[in-house]
Amino acid sequence: MSSQKPSIPKGTRDFSPAEMVRRNYIFDVIRGIFECYGYLPIETPAMENLSTLMGKYGEEGDKLLFKILNSGDFLSGVPREKISAEGDEAGSRALAPLIAEKGLRYDLTVPFARFVVQHQHELTFPFKRYQIQPVWRADRPQKGRYREFFQCDVDVIGSVSLLNELELVQIIDAVFRKLEIKVLIRLNNRKILAGIAECIGHPELLTDITVAIDKLDKIGPEKVNEELLGRGVTPEGTGKLQPILNIIGGFAEKFALLEEMFTGSETGRAGIAEMKILHDYLTSSGIVNEVDFDLKLARGLSYYTGTIFEVKALEASMGSICGGGRYDDLTGIFGLTGMSGVGISFGADRIYDVMLSLNRFPETLAASTRVLFLNFGPAEERHCLTLLNDWRASGIPSELYPDQVKVKKQMEYANRKSIPFVVFIGKDEIEQGTVTLKNMSTGEQRSSNPEELKQLLIW
Amino acid sequence: MSSQKPSIPKGTRDFSPAEMVRRNYIFDVIRGIFECYGYLPIETPAMENLSTLMGKYGEEGDKLLFKILNSGDFLSGVPREKISAEGDEAGSRALAPLIAEKGLRYDLTVPFARFVVQHQHELTFPFKRYQIQPVWRADRPQKGRYREFFQCDVDVIGSVSLLNELELVQIIDAVFRKLEIKVLIRLNNRKILAGIAECIGHPELLTDITVAIDKLDKIGPEKVNEELLGRGVTPEGTGKLQPILNIIGGFAEKFALLEEMFTGSETGRAGIAEMKILHDYLTSSGIVNEVDFDLKLARGLSYYTGTIFEVKALEASMGSICGGGRYDDLTGIFGLTGMSGVGISFGADRIYDVMLSLNRFPETLAASTRVLFLNFGPAEERHCLTLLNDWRASGIPSELYPDQVKVKKQMEYANRKSIPFVVFIGKDEIEQGTVTLKNMSTGEQRSSNPEELKQLLIW
Repeated sequence: MSSQKPSIPKGTRDFSPAEMVRRNYIFDVIRGIFECYGYLPIETPAMENLSTLMGKYGEEGDKLLFKILNSGDFLSGVPREKISAEGDEAGSRALAPLIAEKGLRYDLTVPFARFVVQHQHELTFPFKRYQIQPVWRADRPQKGRYREFFQCDVDVIGSVSLLNELELVQIIDAVFRKLEIKVLIRLNNRKILAGIAECIGHPELLTDITVAIDKLDKIGPEKVNEELLGRGVTPEGTGKLQPILNIIGGFAEKFALLEEMFTGSETGRAGIAEMKILHDYLTSSGIVNEVDFDLKLARGLSYYTGTIFEVKALEASMGSICGGGRYDDLTGIFGLTGMSGVGISFGADRIYDVMLSLNRFPETLAASTRVLFLNFGPAEERHCLTLLNDWRASGIPSELYPDQVKVKKQMEYANRKSIPFVVFIGKDEIEQGTVTLKNMSTGEQRSSNPEELKQLLIW
Repeated sequence: MSSQKPSIPKGTRDFSPAEMVRRNYIFDVIRGIFECYGYLPIETPAMENLSTLMGKYGEEGDKLLFKILNSGDFLSGVPREKISAEGDEAGSRALAPLIAEKGLRYDLTVPFARFVVQHQHELTFPFKRYQIQPVWRADRPQKGRYREFFQCDVDVIGSVSLLNELELVQIIDAVFRKLEIKVLIRLNNRKILAGIAECIGHPELLTDITVAIDKLDKIGPEKVNEELLGRGVTPEGTGKLQPILNIIGGFAEKFALLEEMFTGSETGRAGIAEMKILHDYLTSSGIVNEVDFDLKLARGLSYYTGTIFEVKALEASMGSICGGGRYDDLTGIFGLTGMSGVGISFGADRIYDVMLSLNRFPETLAASTRVLFLNFGPAEERHCLTLLNDWRASGIPSELYPDQVKVKKQMEYANRKSIPFVVFIGKDEIEQGTVTLKNMSTGEQRSSNPEELKQLLIW
């Protein structure tokens, strides 16, 4: 075997112990709150059949799926003459489905829908589940965008009640309060967006209109108007849209404007009605973070049909760190209709980056053991082993330096690993039946009987 | 989109909430003990470069690697004329490396070796790490064998001390004591196996000899002898092997036999010396489970060079549920030599199956929330919401039934989810400022003020 310079695929990451401890802190906070709200964990396989995944994320999404080469003789039965006759790109497109049946999951929503349909007879509805797992996308890696990243999804399916939407906003609020990140929670409703498209006379341009409106903050109202005209909206239509683009105020002002506008749109009025119920719930819900009714919020995925959510950190420049919405027919693609659901997804990697940049991880997060026993030789080792057994049984994470090397090297090991306490058991200690304990941050040293020192170290 | 009957790839699994709770129990026990012994977590990406994985698991292992099709136009630059001229099987073999650069990890050991070499300048040695992640193998699925399964690995690298081996045996003992599974911990040493091969005159047949000896329990000594002769061992050689095959007794008897045998084998004597030190450590280590020095233990993977470990559950018929060994040059394949390490891997899926068959999961493992608030209508809902906020803030996992449906249906939901308590807040309760709490297992019902009932429910 020749020696290779080791590396990992671009867009993927190794996590060191220090990173793991911080990541687990985020996962634990999120998991704890999900469970407090009555959501239960599930997991699905990393690999799904490509028939489950293809066509669910748009044409662009299909291209970003990681496909797994069939095992063994994958070319068996593949008409290669035909393929090799075509150009490369067409050849790749034609060959891929013949040699790859499985793919890595792209998100947790489609696997969840597949799970619900496949296990529908074992589940109790409304089914409240959470799922914390990695997903994979063959996106071009860049800052804050990885090819393997972690999503924390929470969904309820089989209930149309807006209490579920309330609960998700409460979960968002609780998670970010616990993580000490100030956020803006933006809400909108797809029915309201559809109502707007109807009222300006272009129900068929819903997607184009929302995409253009979504850019308002970035490019300003004039450019948005230009873009809308370019996408086929009439000047009359853009004229009607101006009050929406320029509205100032909170829920009440927006309700007033929309009610006036939506006299001719049943869908729009249904959207207002939903938003009013949710707003009513929210007023007495104890939410601490800012909640905004934002008519510009669209969110890309086409399966949303009602409320949509998006969360931004207020103190850091980072895209959305959590988002989601209601989907009336997600499981329909797998043959189970009439199952309305609503869910959100927390982006653990972006939350990590925000917390790191704001220095919000608790100082007490320790990626280390609590005590290192120094190794002074075979006889001393034996004394340490007995004590080590006892201290570990009492729940004190402890280790004995395994090799008999210079004390300086052993102390360096403790320092580099930020181990807070070091134990010396040398000849004197053995004779006197004592143990010497050194506090590595204060330098304080004290000799005493082992039981007394143990009590000191129990968390 | 057409409706599809949903399924998952063969050999993979979904995990329901009930399964997740049990699986997490196993992971938590293992993780807790790893940390108590001073091991820290790392994680590596699901995908590794195939150059990292290929050639590390033998020819058979290479075939079992899941390969990931390169993204985009994967045929670009591939000389297809050449490939299509060959037969299917040869074509597949030739094409695979041209269209797939990445693969899913096959175990956690090779990624760990890659991690250590890649991050060697950031690490403190001896480096003690654990890693709990899924691995993937394109094996033929069968009972207890999956294509996606979870390994829990713990390794220390950069120390030759046999204290590490002791620690791993202690960890095995602690894990299975905590999980309440009685196990047999089998130990052997690769140097002893090499010594045996030398002493019977066939150092070059080490692998064949160990493979044959490994079958002793299954096929008996006569068939083992036949097999050895068939693999090229001389009759004189098999004659010398008989004392090994027939030995009865513990560590002392085996040391005596081997010392006599190994006068001519330096490697063999080194193996005995190591085993004696480990045995000496073990005698005063407080290990509860049975530890056996088993000359028949070989373990397949060729990178082991010293102590080898294997663990079997005594009360269930299941293959090895944990195993590992020392490897003197694992990182050598990635260019870092002189790094001896030792590690073991717990097979979480097999441990799960054993625990399930023996009914060893704690009864208190609850895959549910603690309280369900029934929903009697809009006014009652409001009362519930306030209380719900308060109880959740006190750490009581609670939910409000989201839809206003018949009480019977809501009670069924509580029953099917095994929710232990149900709260009724109807008109009477609102008037009187009370709450009615029903214990779902005893049927006992009691009305009182909310604060008093809350105290009852805090774990």
